[in-house]
Formats: sequence, structure tokens, C-alpha cells
Amino acid sequence: MLTSRSVLRALALCAALAASTEASAQNPTQRQAAARAQLSPPTYKPEFGTMWTFDAPPIDYWRRTYGFAPDQKWLDHVRLASVRLPNCSASFVSARGLVMTNHHCGRECTAAASPPDSNYIQTGFAARTLADEKKCVGLYVDQLQSIQNVTDRVRAAITASTPAEQAAQRTAVITQIQNECNQQTQLNCQVVSLYQGGIYSVYRYRRFSDIRLVMAPEGDIAFFGGDPDNFTYPRYDLDLTLLRVYENGQPYSPTDYLKWSPAGATENELVFVVGNPGSTGRLNTIAQMEYLRDVGYPASLAAYKRALAIYAELARTDTSAARRYQNDVFGIANSQKAVTGYRAGLVDTASMAKKRAFEQELRARIAADPRLQAQYGGTFDAIASAQRELATFNPQLRYYGFGGGSTLLQLAAGLVRVAAFANAPDSARLPQYRGPGLNNIRNQLLAPAPIDTAFERLAIAAQLRAAQAELAAGDPFLRVALAGQSPEARAAALVRGTRIGDPAVRQQLLQGGSAAIAASTDPMIVLARAIDPLSRQQLARASALNAIIATNSEKIGQALFATYGTALPPDATFTLRISDGVVKSFPSNGTIAPYKTTFYGLYERSAAFDDKDPFKLPQRWVDRKQNLDLSTPYDFVSTNDIIGGNSGSPVINRNAEVVGLVFDSNIEGVSNRFIFSADVGRTVSVHSRAIPEALRKMYDGARIADELQGR
Amino acid sequence: MLTSRSVLRALALCAALAASTEASAQNPTQRQAAARAQLSPPTYKPEFGTMWTFDAPPIDYWRRTYGFAPDQKWLDHVRLASVRLPNCSASFVSARGLVMTNHHCGRECTAAASPPDSNYIQTGFAARTLADEKKCVGLYVDQLQSIQNVTDRVRAAITASTPAEQAAQRTAVITQIQNECNQQTQLNCQVVSLYQGGIYSVYRYRRFSDIRLVMAPEGDIAFFGGDPDNFTYPRYDLDLTLLRVYENGQPYSPTDYLKWSPAGATENELVFVVGNPGSTGRLNTIAQMEYLRDVGYPASLAAYKRALAIYAELARTDTSAARRYQNDVFGIANSQKAVTGYRAGLVDTASMAKKRAFEQELRARIAADPRLQAQYGGTFDAIASAQRELATFNPQLRYYGFGGGSTLLQLAAGLVRVAAFANAPDSARLPQYRGPGLNNIRNQLLAPAPIDTAFERLAIAAQLRAAQAELAAGDPFLRVALAGQSPEARAAALVRGTRIGDPAVRQQLLQGGSAAIAASTDPMIVLARAIDPLSRQQLARASALNAIIATNSEKIGQALFATYGTALPPDATFTLRISDGVVKSFPSNGTIAPYKTTFYGLYERSAAFDDKDPFKLPQRWVDRKQNLDLSTPYDFVSTNDIIGGNSGSPVINRNAEVVGLVFDSNIEGVSNRFIFSADVGRTVSVHSRAIPEALRKMYDGARIADELQGR
Repeated sequence: MLTSRSVLRALALCAALAASTEASAQNPTQRQAAARAQLSPPTYKPEFGTMWTFDAPPIDYWRRTYGFAPDQKWLDHVRLASVRLPNCSASFVSARGLVMTNHHCGRECTAAASPPDSNYIQTGFAARTLADEKKCVGLYVDQLQSIQNVTDRVRAAITASTPAEQAAQRTAVITQIQNECNQQTQLNCQVVSLYQGGIYSVYRYRRFSDIRLVMAPEGDIAFFGGDPDNFTYPRYDLDLTLLRVYENGQPYSPTDYLKWSPAGATENELVFVVGNPGSTGRLNTIAQMEYLRDVGYPASLAAYKRALAIYAELARTDTSAARRYQNDVFGIANSQKAVTGYRAGLVDTASMAKKRAFEQELRARIAADPRLQAQYGGTFDAIASAQRELATFNPQLRYYGFGGGSTLLQLAAGLVRVAAFANAPDSARLPQYRGPGLNNIRNQLLAPAPIDTAFERLAIAAQLRAAQAELAAGDPFLRVALAGQSPEARAAALVRGTRIGDPAVRQQLLQGGSAAIAASTDPMIVLARAIDPLSRQQLARASALNAIIATNSEKIGQALFATYGTALPPDATFTLRISDGVVKSFPSNGTIAPYKTTFYGLYERSAAFDDKDPFKLPQRWVDRKQNLDLSTPYDFVSTNDIIGGNSGSPVINRNAEVVGLVFDSNIEGVSNRFIFSADVGRTVSVHSRAIPEALRKMYDGARIADELQGR
Repeated sequence: MLTSRSVLRALALCAALAASTEASAQNPTQRQAAARAQLSPPTYKPEFGTMWTFDAPPIDYWRRTYGFAPDQKWLDHVRLASVRLPNCSASFVSARGLVMTNHHCGRECTAAASPPDSNYIQTGFAARTLADEKKCVGLYVDQLQSIQNVTDRVRAAITASTPAEQAAQRTAVITQIQNECNQQTQLNCQVVSLYQGGIYSVYRYRRFSDIRLVMAPEGDIAFFGGDPDNFTYPRYDLDLTLLRVYENGQPYSPTDYLKWSPAGATENELVFVVGNPGSTGRLNTIAQMEYLRDVGYPASLAAYKRALAIYAELARTDTSAARRYQNDVFGIANSQKAVTGYRAGLVDTASMAKKRAFEQELRARIAADPRLQAQYGGTFDAIASAQRELATFNPQLRYYGFGGGSTLLQLAAGLVRVAAFANAPDSARLPQYRGPGLNNIRNQLLAPAPIDTAFERLAIAAQLRAAQAELAAGDPFLRVALAGQSPEARAAALVRGTRIGDPAVRQQLLQGGSAAIAASTDPMIVLARAIDPLSRQQLARASALNAIIATNSEKIGQALFATYGTALPPDATFTLRISDGVVKSFPSNGTIAPYKTTFYGLYERSAAFDDKDPFKLPQRWVDRKQNLDLSTPYDFVSTNDIIGGNSGSPVINRNAEVVGLVFDSNIEGVSNRFIFSADVGRTVSVHSRAIPEALRKMYDGARIADELQGR
């Protein structure tokens, strides 16, 4: 799987924090020297990856590199055959509206469509007939019809001088453009900011809302190898859902769909991934990357380590705890894997040297043009300075709060803040308490929340110990949080003394409003009351610095686009991209990881682990094994450039035929978030030959396989 | 495979070189403090590994750790069932003298026993009947009968005061002990120095010299995955040879043999490896290890890198060169893999901290006893000082010579040195020219040696470039080696101008003796004449320092044995050891490497590489695949402590039944050479269930399988 919720949480946390240990300032003399220097024409840099937009395909680069230059018809066909799900990518793969995506992308529908006595996630599902196909309530599919650059109109509308007013004007003009477009075209129009605001484009989507489940294999085969194998390769996953688009109660006949390749992906073949990558950080400045490398990510990794130590401690004395927290442990271990991967790209000195050289080149280009220099000359230093300042209070920002995993502490924070914000205007609230947020949080506080007191004691004590180690001795947070006790004694006293684990107590406090909170002697509430002002002060300080970073990042994006144009692909924005790559093995584990795996490998890995979870095969895959041609290609790797959001993307060949279905990156590819390299990073896909083989031999799905294969 | 000739060469080279960047000296105050400190009783340290001798098995440690305490009968039985081949380990595995070892251990016999029109290495071989079993000319098997400590007698014989005289006395007494023992017992007796001379033991072997080949699979299945998969796991190798010991023309019935386990190795099971590990460096001092880490190994790795660059350059312009040098490239890549592995243990700060703590403890124990302090107190500093001095001229030692892979340069060196040493006494010759060595080298010089001039030019130029980069500008070697030219021009001129590639020219020069060499104007001979004195000066300097290191290492071994006794196992000496361990998976490649593989995995890896070499299956394994139970365990890993020489060792369970056959270490285990850790290092073995399955289903070998399984 490409996305992991805890990873996304971790990243959000990192993004919320933010400073460089080293400024990349240029002095005036250097600037003039660069300005005088002859700069070569701006060209493509491989470290920016290959997430190309459909309105600026790099035809010349493809022709030079692969001897392949698709025409506009090819590009239009591929674009129209590719669709987007709420959080994934997908494609039309038959004349009757079959849509192919990953198993986890259809997971909600697969679960919801299950009969009361069964669960398709466990049993798998393949509709015998059209009539058996199950409605996916709430699911929709968006097809990109056209793209239009609206940068001039957005820019023209922004006339104010303060960032806040500018932001309001930007929001207003974008809303206006979208509304006009929706009315005029009857399409779903979205204005997308590319190059961090370097350009604005309106993306027009046709939305299909009658989506039905055609086939989904068992979760155990779709996610075979579970969390341990996640982000790794060789892999053996059938990470597939087949949906169908209906229109007027009938299968929809798309104008464009991808035909199925008979051979599938072959070694060293040119392939394209078409999908919607979510977010990359390749335009980040060196100062931003160094902050993540030296401050943000190390803090996250230390937090994961503490959390895993807590679970290990619990499991040491209580075997049921090991089972109970298994998913949490795997989730954290996977976040640890992912963040270690992201950081690996930043720790790699060769990669960082490339990035540094690029930044110097960009700064020289800006300095060489007085108009650009006046507009953008100060941006890099402004970001570096903000990152430096963020680094100075990063420990305070992390500890003056309610982190560390304690449910009780989070409940206390919610109770104190709901009371404080209830009568405040939105602008005075923390972001997540604005608008409907306040009520959502109130409802969450009223819901039952199981409290594991052993875990609570360990989690609070660990957080207090870490704070004690990182903060100065007289720190105000330590004073209130420890109250003169040892972390262990304090944690025990808090957990023993509080009654907010009881929903009835929480309801009373919520009803009593700020007066009840102010009067409460519950030790958790008393603590949360003391922490809250400290926390808000740090958050406000970080928020101001992050606003400086955001404003200057947008300017850097504008400067980049002004100098390089579309020679470099923009950062990912969960909009349609086409990435070129090659099916290719890679050095791994002291030897070579093959370009593909086969069904033999699935049975090998299961047998090697004595069929134990998460390597347990669904019964169907045991019973029908002899039906399969075990040498059928199963998964494969290629050098395409993907990231979360690309889940479910088709992999196609020069003939625009499906050769695979993207479902993951190897751990080496995870570091591509900031600086792309195809040395060892790989996209992992299901091979197109595995899908009809499994449909026919395992799922009695000849009807569906025939349709895919156009028979 | 555990051993690789180029690795052994590389190690010999490293050993021939030798100094620390950091002294671990203790000042007098520290020494006294340690002496006054209460030292706890000396106990086992896991970082010394588990290569136990049969005369000092750690029964208490085994009982504590595994709840298993074998009696003397068990130990005697296992010792007598285990045998040694000239370079490998093996075991009796049937009542009729079947001996099990690795494929590469029987390789010479398998090749030599092949009929003229075929090669058993390619085709595999399984004798249908006893009469079909093929004599292995020259092969013998040694069975350890008994061990006797002779330390007192050896020590008593050494009365001289100079190291040279001491060495001569030591050799004399050892020869005498061996001869007496041979005569008295009719056994093959060998005096072994353990703990670097801490103790001497005579090992008495019964030698069996009528050995016949019973079964050997195809090389392609024994070494499936070839050099890429070497030192890695998961693995899929049937690295097996079955031999039979005959006596008086009849199968020999050993008093002791290992029965076959029906279940074979199971996860988390206690297992023992019984075999003859060749050489470890766990008693090396920190100074020695730091020298290897910072000087010796980096130099080797740089040399491998240069060599690989030469082959890459050749392959760039000449595709036949790629094929021609494939074996050399794989060999060097494997040496690079191994040396990187060795160094990994030394770069690991946690491992080195353990080693440092141990050395401090040992020095404290020595300092605490005035008698030990007087004898051994100065040894660590003496070694550190010698290593430091060696480091000061390490580049000179490496470059003032004939390295870099040029055959022409080596021929020239041989011609110059044979002439110089022909009339000199042994003591004045370089070691390899002593005794019969001179004549061997003379014969090698007369044999035809193919010269690849393109390779020669690149190799000489690369060596000269590296010398230029590492040596000071006015260096005498650079003056004569470059003769004022660029490395490339000089290399071209040398290769173009020399005639010593012609064996007839070499014969003339050899016949002409030193006069002919002195008169030669052949540019290679002129160069070799100029380099030789420079080289010999450096070698003499290094040799003197290495003698200091050897003498003091022996003392440290004595001190270690005097303080710890047999609580710590001695370094490996290619004598019989028993190592305890557990069958266990390990974290690898971001996920888990399973404790075992199955035949499914063999077919997976072959299919994943489209059956390309070195993943090509022998035809028999394609044709008869359907006969196999693919879920049969094939290879497995355990935490036993092994190293080159252990190849072919049996893996046994508590019942002394065969559960596997050792054939490799994973790359993580390679770093165990200096500091043992079972965290991720693993021994890789063929599973006992795979052998009868393959014999029965693939090799029509029911006769042999029945014998192994006692049916």
C-alpha cells in the first residue's frame, strides 16, 4: 500500500513543525558574479522526477530518451481512460465501463456491500453476472476532461498588500472561476495551484456517481505479507478492486478505455504510470529539507521509538496486550519505515549535493534578472531564517502540548479547549476547532473511549521523561507537568486520580462550560488548564513562521516557473500526471531483486512462514492452487515516479495497453519524496497477466477476464 | 559458498599489511586503579561467539541457556561422527560410511571422476549401485580421535631469549611431539595452537584415504543464484556432495554416524553446528581492528573498485571482454561484498564499544596481578605502536610493488627476483621464494600466460594513477614508475615495448640468470629492476613490525587464557568445534527473512529471472518438477557461529540427528569475523528434508535416500 494513515499523520505533524542548521545565503558579490555569468538554457533535471502534467508533456525528452513521441491523440486517449477516486487513481479497462483500482481503494465499498452474515474483505467477491454487481454508496469517479491555465486571472485579482488580504482575494477569485466553470460546462471544476503557486490551472472533471463493485479478492491476498512486507519488494500482492461505472442503470460505455496487453510488462520495457500523485516536496528549499532531516524527522523517529518501547513493555508482562496492540505496533513500525525512508533521501550526500547545486543555479538565474531579483531575491533567505527560528523552539513546540499517545490527556485537552472556544469567534480558535470542527470534537468527547490504564501510565511517563531530557531544568511546562514528582510517579498519580475516562463525567464538564472547567479539581483537567496557554503560545509562534515559509515558497514556485517553465514537472497535487519509466530489476539485499515475481513466490513466502499470519493464504488459494500456472508473472517493478495517491494507477506500454496496476513503492523509493532517483527506488505493480489468471482460476471470473481481455 | 579464493587472497594481503589511528594506552594511574578495583569472576562474553572445542564444552552455559546438558557419550559420538576434508567439514551420515559435505568441497573429485564425454559438475551424478561409486583420487577424510593439552611441554622447550630462536625451538618441539604421537598411535597427529599460543593441544586424527563419489547434483543447482546470491539469504541451493568411505575395498562401517532427523530443522529449535572453522580475529586488539577498519580494508576496497572500473571500461568497448572477464568480475565483486561485510563489524560502534570494554576489562585483570602485569602488561601498547608505524608507510607498502593486476608486471617481478634469489640462501629470499618455492615460480614463469594488452594498459595506468594520487610528488617509486610520463602514456609505452609476454623470451632471461636481467633493456624488466629494491625495503620493514605484532598477540592469547581459561572459546584454527544456536528468522530488506525456504522459492527465483544464468535450472529440475513436493523445506538459517572451513558441517539437533548441512553465511554474518553477534548474522544450511526429497524425486536415488534415512 502506498498510503498509511499514521504516515500521513506523521507528515502532517512534521509539516506543522518546521529551520536550517546552515543558511544558503548569497552575498551581493556572489550575486553579481552569477548575474554576469553565462547561464545555460534551463533544462530538465532528473532529480525533479517525472510527474508530468497532460498540458505540458515532455515530448522531446521522451523522444531523446526512449525514441518514443506520443501524439496528441495518444495523450488524449490515455487521459480520458484514466480516472480518479476520492483518494486513489484508477482507469477504464473495458468497453463496458470496468474500472481497475487497488484493493484498499475500494475497501469501504467492499466492506459495505457485504451481506450481513459475511464480509467480502475476508471472503473475496466476484459478481457472477451484471445483476450481481453491488452498488458502492457514496463512491464516485472523476474523469479529467480538460485543463486551462488561469494564472493571469488569479494574479490580476490579487491587488492587496497584506498576506491575509491576498489570501482572501485568491480564495474569492478561485471560487468564482470554479463556479463559473461548473455552470458553463456542467462539469466539476477545480482550480489547482502548480509550482507552489507558480501557475494556476482549472481542471474540469466529469463525475460518475453510479459505481458498482464487480470483484475484490480477499484482503489476505490483496495485502499478502501485511505490514512487514509493506514498502518492500519482492512482493506477492493481488492489490486489486474491479468496479463498474453505470449510467442510467446500464454499464457505461466510455469513449476511451485501456486495452489489456497480452504479454504484460517485460524487462527493460518503457512504461508509463498515469495517475494522481498526492504530494511531493521537490521544490522545498535546502533550508526546509535540512530542517526535516535534522529536526522534524529525528523528532518523529524518536517519538516512534518511544511508542514502540511502550508496546514492548506492555507485551513483556501481558501477552493479550501484544495481540491488542498489534495493529498499532505495525502502524507505527510502518511510519518509522516510511519516515526513515523519507529521511534517507535527505541524508544521502550525493542527492543533497544535486539539490544544493540546483538551488544555486536557480538563485543565479533569479539574480541574473533584476526584475526577478527584486521579486524573489529574498525568498530563500526568508525561508532559511524562519526555519532557523522554528528549530530554536522545536522541543517546546513538541512537548508543550498533549502528545505522547495518552487518550486521557487528549480528552482533557479537548474538554478544556471546547470550553475555551465555545464562545470565541472562529479566528480566535485553533484551526481544528473552527466551523463544524468544534461540534465534531464535542461529539468525539462524548463517545465512549476505552482507557487502558497500564498503557496510559507508561505513555505519560515516557512523554514526561522525554520532555525532562530535552527541555531545560526550569522549563515552565516541566514545572506544571511534573509537579515536583518523578515522571513515573506523576503519571501514576494522574491516571489514578482522574475521572474523565468516564463519558458521564465528560458530559457534565461539557455541559458546565468554562465555569465547570475552571472549577474542576480533576488532576487531568488541572494539568490541561495549565498546559493549554503554554501550548497555544508555541502554536501561534510556529503558525506565524509557517505563514512566512508558505508565502515565500509560493514565490519560489513562481520564480521557478518564470525561469524553467514546464521543463521541470511541478510538485504532486493529486491531479493527473503521466510518468515515464522502465521495467527494471535493482540491487537489493546484497544481490539482485528481479524485475518481476511469479505465483511461485506467493506460495514460497507462505510456506516459508508456515502459512502464519500475515503470510496466511486464503483457503481458496490453497484449494485451487493446482489450477494456477504458478509461473505467471505476479508483481513487478519499474522506475516510474509515484507517491501516495498513485495507488490504483494503470501501468501502460507504448500502445496504451495495460501492463500493470500500481500499488506500492519499495522502501528505497520512499526517499524520492524530496529528490527523485531511479537508482534503486522502484514502483511496485500487479502484473497484468496475474489478473485474468487469478480471475479465471481462482474466482470463477471468466466473464470478467474475458471482458478485460476483449474476448 | 563460505570461501572464495579471491577473498582469501584479499585477506592474506590485508594480513600482510598491518596500525591504529588511536592508541588504547592506559596510564599508570589507571592501571593501579584497575588493579585495586574488585574484578568480577571472568565469564563468557557473547561477542566471542560459540566455536567451542570438544575438550572444553560449556555445559553449564548450555544448561542455563537452553536447558540442555549433553553428556560425554553424546559429545564423543558427535565428535567421532564429524570428519574433516582437506579444506572443508563433513560428517558420517550412514551405517555404511556415507559422508555428507558441500558441493564445492567435492568439486575436484566430481570433475575428475567424470567420463571423458561429460562433466558431472554440469550433469550431476548419482551412483545407481555401490559399484558405480567413483574413486576420489587424492581425497582423504580425517576423524578426530582425541585431544591432549601439551602446553607445558611446548613451553618448557622454549628457553631461548630471541624471538627467532624461540620460534625455532617451538617448531622443533612441535615436530617432535607430532612424530612421537604418529609413531605411538599410528594416527595423524597435529599440534594446534589455541588462544594465539595460549595453549597447545595435539589433535589425533584417523585418516581414511579410500573415498568415493556417491552423489553430487549439478553445479547450477548446488550454487543456484551464483555469485549474486552468494553471502545472501533467502537462498535456494542444494550445496551437497555425498561421498563414501571405503576400507579394504568395502564400505566402511563407522563406529559413530549421525542419524537423519525425520522432521528436520524447525523454527526456534536449538541446533549445533559441528565442524572446522578456519580463522577468526576475535582476539585481535582494538589497535589491530582499527588498523583493518581504517587502513587495511579501505585500501582493499579501493583496489577492488579500481579493478571493477577497469573491467567496466573494457566491457564498454568490447562485449566479448564482458564475457571473458565475467568470472573475475564476480570474484572481485564477492571479495568486495565480503570485505565490506568484515569491515561492517568494525564500523559498527556498538560492536566496537563491546570490544573496547572487553579489552579494558582484560587489561584491568592483567594489571591486577603483578606477575601477569610483568609478563603481558606491555603487549597492547606494543601492538598499537607497531600498527601505528605500519599505517605511516601503508601506501608505500602497497604501491612499491607489482600489484594492480598486470600479468606483465608480475612476470617481470618474477624474472628479476628468481635471478636475484637463485644463488642466495633461503634466509635472504622473500618467503614465497624459499625452499621449493623458487622452482615453482620458475616453472610458472615458463608456462604460457595469455596477455590481454587492452587490460594490461588499463590496469597499469590505473595503478599508476592511484599511486600518483596517494604518494607524495617526489616519491622515488613514482619517479621510476612514471619516468616523467602520464600514467596512461607510460602504461601504453610499457605494454607496447615489452617482449616478456613471449614465453621464449622469458626462458632466455631465466637461462641468462642475473647477468641477463642486468643487461636487459626490456622496459618491463628495467622497471622491475628499479622497483624491486624499493619493494623489498618496505616488505622488510613491514615484516619486522608484523613479527612484533605476532609475538605480542601470542602473549595476549596466553594472558587471556591465564585469566579467562576456557570460559571464552578460542579463535578458529580449522579444528573441530561445536557451536550452539537457534533456527531463527531475522529482520532483512525492510521486512522479515523467513527461517526457511522451500522448493517453491527455487522455482520462483528462476522464473522471476526468466530462467537466465545464474538462475537457470538444470534440465532435470525442469523436467521432473511435478515429482517434487514444492513445499518441502529447502534451505534454512540459524544463529550458529561459523566461518570459512565450516563448509559441509552437519547441523544437528539435541538427539544428534542431522537437521541440515551448512553451506554459507548471510552477508550480515560476515562481520562476525571479529565480533560475534546473532542479531542479524545467520548460518545458511540445506534443510535435511530437501536432501532425500531431491535424491528420490530428481536423481533416482532412492537407494541413497533409504540409506540416509535408515530405511
